[in-house]
Amino acid sequence: MYIGIDLGGTNIAAGLVTEEGEITNTDSTPTLLPRNYKEIVADMAKLSEKIVSKAGLTMDDIDGIGIGCPGSVDSKNGIVAFSNNLKMDHAPLVAEMKKYFDKPINILNDADAAAFGEYMINGSNVDSFIFITLGTGVGGGIIINKKVYSGFNGAGGELGHITLVHNGIPCNCGNIGCWEAYASVTALIRQTKEAMERNPDSKMHEIAKADGKINGRTAFIAAKAGDKAGNEVVKQYLEYVASGLVSIINIFQPEKIVIGGGISREGDYLLNPIKEYCDKHEYNKYLKKTELSIATLYNDAGIVGAALSCKE
Amino acid sequence: MYIGIDLGGTNIAAGLVTEEGEITNTDSTPTLLPRNYKEIVADMAKLSEKIVSKAGLTMDDIDGIGIGCPGSVDSKNGIVAFSNNLKMDHAPLVAEMKKYFDKPINILNDADAAAFGEYMINGSNVDSFIFITLGTGVGGGIIINKKVYSGFNGAGGELGHITLVHNGIPCNCGNIGCWEAYASVTALIRQTKEAMERNPDSKMHEIAKADGKINGRTAFIAAKAGDKAGNEVVKQYLEYVASGLVSIINIFQPEKIVIGGGISREGDYLLNPIKEYCDKHEYNKYLKKTELSIATLYNDAGIVGAALSCKE
Repeated sequence: MYIGIDLGGTNIAAGLVTEEGEITNTDSTPTLLPRNYKEIVADMAKLSEKIVSKAGLTMDDIDGIGIGCPGSVDSKNGIVAFSNNLKMDHAPLVAEMKKYFDKPINILNDADAAAFGEYMINGSNVDSFIFITLGTGVGGGIIINKKVYSGFNGAGGELGHITLVHNGIPCNCGNIGCWEAYASVTALIRQTKEAMERNPDSKMHEIAKADGKINGRTAFIAAKAGDKAGNEVVKQYLEYVASGLVSIINIFQPEKIVIGGGISREGDYLLNPIKEYCDKHEYNKYLKKTELSIATLYNDAGIVGAALSCKE
Repeated sequence: MYIGIDLGGTNIAAGLVTEEGEITNTDSTPTLLPRNYKEIVADMAKLSEKIVSKAGLTMDDIDGIGIGCPGSVDSKNGIVAFSNNLKMDHAPLVAEMKKYFDKPINILNDADAAAFGEYMINGSNVDSFIFITLGTGVGGGIIINKKVYSGFNGAGGELGHITLVHNGIPCNCGNIGCWEAYASVTALIRQTKEAMERNPDSKMHEIAKADGKINGRTAFIAAKAGDKAGNEVVKQYLEYVASGLVSIINIFQPEKIVIGGGISREGDYLLNPIKEYCDKHEYNKYLKKTELSIATLYNDAGIVGAALSCKE
């Protein structure tokens, strides 16, 4: 049995995870930033003991603890090298956590943890695996030869920050024209708003009104109901998503790409046009192709991946 | 001592390569396409014996033979999976070559061979290394954990075919807006021609006349001589090169990137503006950065890399 911890800027979530990647118990506590990393680790330790005892187990039953957190992580040395969200700079989280528990403890970037979770559940038979998450941003993780690849400094795998449009619109990262600026759900909402302004008769207006706000589903619902403007938004958005994926495929030719994030709940309605675009535009015309599919773990991916990352 | 073979569409070049990556003897013979792969292998065997005997050695002195060739290569099984240039489809080159020589024989993609050569000479101390070659196209190779990474089907590492401009100009690969369509020397020549048409007074006209043609150096020579239009061409071209490199850096955070191809002979004049752009635009602002440098092997990289790839 393993513990997976998702250390976020708002909450610390922890889960008891079986060898097979099933979550049996979870709990969470607020992160209460800004705080010293030692206080945060003390809370992670308390939370770990709490979920273990709730399950009728003791810490002796736990084979390892994995921690996923935002930022650049030096997994080899167990250090958060830099995290803007957590306000941490060279924080030795693993060494601090070892003061509480003398067992294998691993730390990795949260997107990498989610990627590793999806990999263990949906792709552990392949040598090259990419996970893409379409959310507030576009995140990703690279698994090569059963290990997370994150570059020599732990800052790699920023798949959302490949250029999609040279000299394009500004991205949160400070660069311009990043894939994230066109293919995140944040971008989709912006594209939806713009289309609504141009099309006062679109069904998107009533859908947004019923939902109380414009969200990532607005254009999809409208498109499925036959709304022309909604359909155009979805078509353009999926083309942005797919165009970035073509770059990823041409670089990695991974055996499998899994797409996650809330928007991936659209399933085949999202996946099929993406597959079609990639098939038409990718470089490889003659050899076996990358398999594209939809994630299955959603918000659990980070906890599962963090937990199973300390399995070795 | 190793033999490295660069099997191209026009010529087969071979070199004797020392353990340290020094080429001591070379020779070549025309490929004479279209021909059956068995005839081509027979010529590679003859050429190998010729360079060995010219060096006063016998095949017993050779520890291995490496072959680099264009196309998608299945190194594990010693097969050219598909090569448009060589008109080969599932050609078992290694098995055929083994009929002549009973020693370690390895086959890999030619850009990967060049990348591996530059890696062995200029980067063998790092765990993550990317080689980019700016030539007729934009090629590349990825070395992770001392091994060439080329995806599950051998078709990966097509770094020139990441999207730089969504819905941009057509690329030779059939896609649109690829980095190669903006950052290859072919693209630079096109950009130079267009600028010359717009600027009949530019020094580029006399430089091209003196050279007998417009080539990849025309704009660089003009820029260095203070020509405004030439300077604009160079500035724009280097921005295209650097913009693609930012994507590569954000994905891989490799410890080292080496830039090759004829144009890389421009040295710091090429490298410094690229470094400046990457530094400004890359995602990683707080951690150690990728080292960018210029290749040193030029045309020898493929032979050296192919030879040393069979060292293990």
